[in-house]
Amino acid sequence: MEAVFKQQEMSELVGEILDSYQKYPKTCSIDMDNRLNRAEIIEILEEIRALAFPGFFEMKNLNRDAIAYHVGELLENIQYRLRKQVARALYHTEKNTPQDEEEAMQRAGQIVHEFLKTIPALRSLLETDVQAAYDGDPAAFNTDEVILSYPGVFAITVNRIAHELHKLGVPLIPRMMTEYAHNLTGIDIHPGATIGKYFFIDHGTGVVVGETTEIGDRVKIYQGVTLGALSTRGGQSLRNKKRHPTLEDDVTVYSGASILGGETVIGAGAIIGSNAFITSSVPARTRVSIKNPELQFKGRVSMTELGQEGFWKNKADMAP
Amino acid sequence: MEAVFKQQEMSELVGEILDSYQKYPKTCSIDMDNRLNRAEIIEILEEIRALAFPGFFEMKNLNRDAIAYHVGELLENIQYRLRKQVARALYHTEKNTPQDEEEAMQRAGQIVHEFLKTIPALRSLLETDVQAAYDGDPAAFNTDEVILSYPGVFAITVNRIAHELHKLGVPLIPRMMTEYAHNLTGIDIHPGATIGKYFFIDHGTGVVVGETTEIGDRVKIYQGVTLGALSTRGGQSLRNKKRHPTLEDDVTVYSGASILGGETVIGAGAIIGSNAFITSSVPARTRVSIKNPELQFKGRVSMTELGQEGFWKNKADMAP
Amino acid sequence: MEAVFKQQEMSELVGEILDSYQKYPKTCSIDMDNRLNRAEIIEILEEIRALAFPGFFEMKNLNRDAIAYHVGELLENIQYRLRKQVARALYHTEKNTPQDEEEAMQRAGQIVHEFLKTIPALRSLLETDVQAAYDGDPAAFNTDEVILSYPGVFAITVNRIAHELHKLGVPLIPRMMTEYAHNLTGIDIHPGATIGKYFFIDHGTGVVVGETTEIGDRVKIYQGVTLGALSTRGGQSLRNKKRHPTLEDDVTVYSGASILGGETVIGAGAIIGSNAFITSSVPARTRVSIKNPELQFKGRVSMTELGQEGFWKNKADMAP
Repeated sequence: MEAVFKQQEMSELVGEILDSYQKYPKTCSIDMDNRLNRAEIIEILEEIRALAFPGFFEMKNLNRDAIAYHVGELLENIQYRLRKQVARALYHTEKNTPQDEEEAMQRAGQIVHEFLKTIPALRSLLETDVQAAYDGDPAAFNTDEVILSYPGVFAITVNRIAHELHKLGVPLIPRMMTEYAHNLTGIDIHPGATIGKYFFIDHGTGVVVGETTEIGDRVKIYQGVTLGALSTRGGQSLRNKKRHPTLEDDVTVYSGASILGGETVIGAGAIIGSNAFITSSVPARTRVSIKNPELQFKGRVSMTELGQEGFWKNKADMAP
Repeated sequence: MEAVFKQQEMSELVGEILDSYQKYPKTCSIDMDNRLNRAEIIEILEEIRALAFPGFFEMKNLNRDAIAYHVGELLENIQYRLRKQVARALYHTEKNTPQDEEEAMQRAGQIVHEFLKTIPALRSLLETDVQAAYDGDPAAFNTDEVILSYPGVFAITVNRIAHELHKLGVPLIPRMMTEYAHNLTGIDIHPGATIGKYFFIDHGTGVVVGETTEIGDRVKIYQGVTLGALSTRGGQSLRNKKRHPTLEDDVTVYSGASILGGETVIGAGAIIGSNAFITSSVPARTRVSIKNPELQFKGRVSMTELGQEGFWKNKADMAP
Repeated sequence: MEAVFKQQEMSELVGEILDSYQKYPKTCSIDMDNRLNRAEIIEILEEIRALAFPGFFEMKNLNRDAIAYHVGELLENIQYRLRKQVARALYHTEKNTPQDEEEAMQRAGQIVHEFLKTIPALRSLLETDVQAAYDGDPAAFNTDEVILSYPGVFAITVNRIAHELHKLGVPLIPRMMTEYAHNLTGIDIHPGATIGKYFFIDHGTGVVVGETTEIGDRVKIYQGVTLGALSTRGGQSLRNKKRHPTLEDDVTVYSGASILGGETVIGAGAIIGSNAFITSSVPARTRVSIKNPELQFKGRVSMTELGQEGFWKNKADMAP
């Protein structure tokens, strides 16, 4: 059996690929000693999550007598690994370039220090999110189920962690964390979004919460909700502008609704119905719904059609 | 280089985190000898799936002569691992607490016994789902492709497994299984939903099928369809009530449609159009569609705008 | 503790499962020496992606001096592994059956040869996609962030790889690749779709791009957009027909819009608004939007309701 490439062809192809590396350097990351490591960042994130929900995600049982050692060890591990990644993120991004690697490590150390001190406050926030998920979903069996399996709880956990790092000025890493949660849950919350306590996302697939969104306490949103920008056709020129809406306390937004624009404020206690498309502010405690598109009944589906034209034409067990 | 924490600071932080564990015990699972293990549950699920589709997901080739041994070994393995997890789920949930661990293992043994006996019936159901996916999708190449790569087939496989465990009264585990499928496919089917044969979900991302939904035979639904509750503002007080709709045999629901409410019945053979929002019953063999929102044509996009305001302003190769 | 099954019961159950394997052979893959291996195919895909974005996804740092060896080794590895899987895909699918395994390996070798020669062209396309994501998203920090974390970039990368294999006539494997991307991103692009340069999908969850879709250059689409078929009730009889729309250059499609039908052409520079439902052609440079469903304001949410009926009834810290 012939090889796929003759030796000459192979070295030509290698040459062409190397040329393409030179021609398009933005899509290459060669000779970067201190690259960010996505797998490492995800592992650190999972360690922080284990610290926040002790005993739920470890393989081993956590014993009360040894819990202080467990927490201490986990903290040591997280600070060591996270500092290294934060230093790399600082060192390699144009706008934050410290003078040298040592300065980057110094600043990363301060950031990680600040970050880890927020863990108790983070835990008290997460406790409200777990409670909100249990209270808000009749299908919830108990709070363990919520912690172990609800995608909305996973997404807000990751977001609260990433948001702290974002506030501390860490580039790249917070977004890598929230996009990991996006992968797993279909819920896309930018680490820049500010979110109050008792936040619950039910089902969640398709939810988008933009960078400059502000959300109050006890807000509940459903699958397919977009809290977005009116237009992003300005591209990079819109960077850092408030482009996404504000939801005050106790707002509920049902599935598929879109709320757009940086000047749009949904007042406290408002209820936004399914599929509403909202681009201006809504007063407090208002119910907003759309007149659902009128249904049209176009007559009877014939048996011929059901049985022959379509999907089930070969089914012996077709309903008569 | 200074450490991130001085020793004194570190032990203070450990202390604060431990305080937070005491203050918020619901988000802790400490001193639980027999915790549920999510990774283990997913592995067991994948073994059951391998038993249901022999030869598709194993790393090794399955030989016809040795297949009985293979099946026997897989069954032994599944019953051993699953029984342990089921016992833990029973033992640690308020409403099912058996007297002691031995009683939990006893009941878990009975449940796993009942569950494994359903495998042949499960396989005959799954065969109908595979056929439905192939028949219903012009892009399907063959049934192998459907089994190897269709998210809708993955989701219904997991759901049928989880639904059997749910019917046998197993807490927590069925939902962990369906949320795993939700993670991978964007399809969120509660293990409580009752689903007939020849079920096909095309594309699937964003589909939500609620706990008390009932679905007949030969039903086909598309991406973004919600079979949901009218309102969940009653929270836990609505538990166990029929809150989600019934779809009779041969119903098709196109993308983005919502069908809501426990008293809503979609009659046999009905076709529900894209984005319809339905909160009351529909007679059999009816075509329901919405008058699509009228399109507005707001005049010509200028070249200036295309070229300067927007997305592509720096593109040298902008179309003239 | 009794075993779950008595020996007699166990052998009966094994027998029933084996009977079900005989009764439903389509859902079995037994005695197939050369089965496709999904895990292997995903690893190969990730190697091709590493070749396309050198240094971003490897665990080790890539050194400039050794880069030629790295590329050569990666190419050798990919060609060896991919050829084997392609040969299996050819050998086991009805419509492409070569005479024997040797012929399959021969044809697979030619295909892999053609495929690998497209890598430089693939890289120049991907560079445009990365640029489009950066230019089009005000929240993008730099192009590294885009490569490391944007789901739209991941999805189009996988799609461009799978599309080349699809064009070369490889069955099964391209779809396994794109469904892997669908799992991770919620973006479902069929490998048959033809897509021009500078393509950007923002957020992406719920996007569906059908098999016969054609997309020009500099097109941007948002989450929840469907480029689909008008009806698939014809099932397999519609195979290979143009069923999905054409989008010319510089088209933008906002979130939740559906564009359906094989004869539907969206002219160059057109902008399609959120949630538009389009089943016929749109002239070039036209702005199309829907009159958003009128909002209804149904009066004030009472405090009683907010506080007692609903979600938050037990909250001590309920807003006054």
